[in-house]
Amino acid sequence: MKTIKVSIAGLGVVGSGLLSLLDQNQRFTRQGITFEVVGVSARTRHRERPVDISTYSWFDDPVEMANDPAADIFVELIGGADGPAKSAVIAALEAGKHVVTANKALIAEHGAQLAALAEQKGVSLKFEAAVAGGTPVVSGLRDGVAACHVTAVSGILNGTCNYILSTMAEKGADFDDVLLEAQKAGFAEADPSFDIDGVDAAHKLVILASLAFDAAVSMQNTSIGGIRHITLEDVRAARRLGMSIKLLGEAKMQEERVGLRVTPALIPQADPFAKASGSQNVVTVDANPLGRLAFQGPGAGAGATAAAVAADLGLIARNIKGPTYGVAAEDLRDLPILPVEDFENSYFIRLNLQDEPGALAAVAEALAAARVSIESLYQPPGDEGQASVEIVTHICKAAAAQNAAGALEKQPFVLGRPTVLPIILP
Amino acid sequence: MKTIKVSIAGLGVVGSGLLSLLDQNQRFTRQGITFEVVGVSARTRHRERPVDISTYSWFDDPVEMANDPAADIFVELIGGADGPAKSAVIAALEAGKHVVTANKALIAEHGAQLAALAEQKGVSLKFEAAVAGGTPVVSGLRDGVAACHVTAVSGILNGTCNYILSTMAEKGADFDDVLLEAQKAGFAEADPSFDIDGVDAAHKLVILASLAFDAAVSMQNTSIGGIRHITLEDVRAARRLGMSIKLLGEAKMQEERVGLRVTPALIPQADPFAKASGSQNVVTVDANPLGRLAFQGPGAGAGATAAAVAADLGLIARNIKGPTYGVAAEDLRDLPILPVEDFENSYFIRLNLQDEPGALAAVAEALAAARVSIESLYQPPGDEGQASVEIVTHICKAAAAQNAAGALEKQPFVLGRPTVLPIILP
Repeated sequence: MKTIKVSIAGLGVVGSGLLSLLDQNQRFTRQGITFEVVGVSARTRHRERPVDISTYSWFDDPVEMANDPAADIFVELIGGADGPAKSAVIAALEAGKHVVTANKALIAEHGAQLAALAEQKGVSLKFEAAVAGGTPVVSGLRDGVAACHVTAVSGILNGTCNYILSTMAEKGADFDDVLLEAQKAGFAEADPSFDIDGVDAAHKLVILASLAFDAAVSMQNTSIGGIRHITLEDVRAARRLGMSIKLLGEAKMQEERVGLRVTPALIPQADPFAKASGSQNVVTVDANPLGRLAFQGPGAGAGATAAAVAADLGLIARNIKGPTYGVAAEDLRDLPILPVEDFENSYFIRLNLQDEPGALAAVAEALAAARVSIESLYQPPGDEGQASVEIVTHICKAAAAQNAAGALEKQPFVLGRPTVLPIILP
Repeated sequence: MKTIKVSIAGLGVVGSGLLSLLDQNQRFTRQGITFEVVGVSARTRHRERPVDISTYSWFDDPVEMANDPAADIFVELIGGADGPAKSAVIAALEAGKHVVTANKALIAEHGAQLAALAEQKGVSLKFEAAVAGGTPVVSGLRDGVAACHVTAVSGILNGTCNYILSTMAEKGADFDDVLLEAQKAGFAEADPSFDIDGVDAAHKLVILASLAFDAAVSMQNTSIGGIRHITLEDVRAARRLGMSIKLLGEAKMQEERVGLRVTPALIPQADPFAKASGSQNVVTVDANPLGRLAFQGPGAGAGATAAAVAADLGLIARNIKGPTYGVAAEDLRDLPILPVEDFENSYFIRLNLQDEPGALAAVAEALAAARVSIESLYQPPGDEGQASVEIVTHICKAAAAQNAAGALEKQPFVLGRPTVLPIILP
């Protein structure tokens, strides 16, 4: 029996879940591996937790724990791109320890730099839990499609947005009301902006794209949109088209340029993406000559995330090495960026019109002027002199759809800001 | 740049696909790896192939090639549980070479023995391509859920059955006609029995179950049913219930007993399993504390299978080691078997009845006598004194449903053999 010594920084739900998992684990025992927890650290030592931590060595300072020679692997579950999480991970790598983290912000912002340090020190840096929780997409991209040319990776990556959008659709409720309810129920944070403004999904997308394209991509290269402006009318209009609105992260490679976009999008209800509800995540990978892979599984939750952290511990314990991103960090490519304006899709454009003669003709003219051609247009029965106009365009560049919407917004008979969302067809 | 020398036995579509993939591969180059093909072998040297093999060293005998010291890795794409494939793999392992194979029959029948030999020799034996083609389910089970207690693994694993069953449904055609057409179109083998009788799916299921449960399971422990007896009436009746008939492999763990079953089953059309059409495979894994994972992707085809073989080559090239099944082959558990009779489901039972007074009452009595309770019963409008009766039972053991069907078959007014299929609810 091989004993691996682990210290764990951060004892929220995932940290507690990991402690219980390592405590019981029979499967690792069958593999001849025992994990011994030689240190724990968290912001608060004494608080109600689902596990008893009194038997573990306590550290007030995660950096001090990262430097403690007792541990072989340092597990970082503190969170945040900078601050103590980053300092502790750097300290642990500098001290020649393997690091396992579930911290998507840290890896999205500093992954390449930390991977380079790990490779220089000859240790592993692993983060399966940082994307899609328990769903093994990180290893899928790193190892499973290692021989392939990946052309795209897309995902439904944020449970809070899933919850809000599907509750709006099911209950016919407005965004603000559903958000408030989600916050009360604990499905959304007190400050929900990371989730609903797309930052969390963007962190995950940046990690997926780095792995998929062997490229150093960053948050700065990512077009990030959230769901705050999605109205109940948008959700209902999507339904009429047989579609759901989901927050989608897409990264694609086109002529050796890489483009990253997080945006709410219309997705056919029959599509696997549309099935991702609640904390379910779905990630698809398009690769040559393989074809399309889809991974679906729990993207959050104590058990799922702890299982992913523990899977990484298992790989390290079984001496499974290799660079963090498949290629050495210093060989991650610096690829030209495909601007989001060049993403080509059908677009869904919804306007609120003052219902006056000639308004619809002017809408059609504005679209034509922006060289956006209409695939379908629907004006449902309206009320009180207002009309909603729902347009599906033929495939065009994002820039064209946005220009058309911008021109429309300036028209006196267009009320408020038009909704412009890509339609993602399989 | 690290050069890894590979010899390839078997140059059908997958072998040819692998040669082109290794020839072009840029992604491995970025990882600092070059694969050099130092030997090829196949049944016939001179035949039309999509790649030119004249520049490679040729071996008439794969066993001789397996013994050739020039190669680091021996790739076996010959196929078949025994014969030259087995001899060559044993020879390669004995000679201290790593082995990568796409051969499900070989691994299902002899995997534990071959893994033990590989572990004794300190080399790797890998077979990602043996199950679900390019979909990384082998590594998902071995590494991704390494920390979890897996309770079930299920899959739609055979493209020929997918094709036949969905064509029956779409074209309203009989099994025999669709099979013939599939054979003409190259979607089914001249001898289709491995596919349509469930043997191919059973091979894959045995491999999945071994990995999922760290257990030495075998074909002998697997209940295997095929789709030969599925009629157009069955397919239509399933549709009326909002379901599709698919050939499903299921392995589950119940009170430390492991049960394996391959059977056609009714699956709700909204279920991810029902979406698997053509060569698409879907595998789901239920694991504690993780939850449910689903993997979907191409289960066959030159590109997808070659990509999976190459992914294994990549792992070996990057020095990624570890026992074949996660646990050492000698530690694979010898678990008691959960007999298929104990599998609990709702069952679909369809009978052709001679339409005579009292027949339906007798059916209901026979079911009651077998202690099978009816959830729903439908008798569609029939013709010429015959009636089809379609029954959905409440959850019961397979034995009870089979007993009920057996008792019914003996009734003089029941024509032919009743159809009995489990209904798989999410």
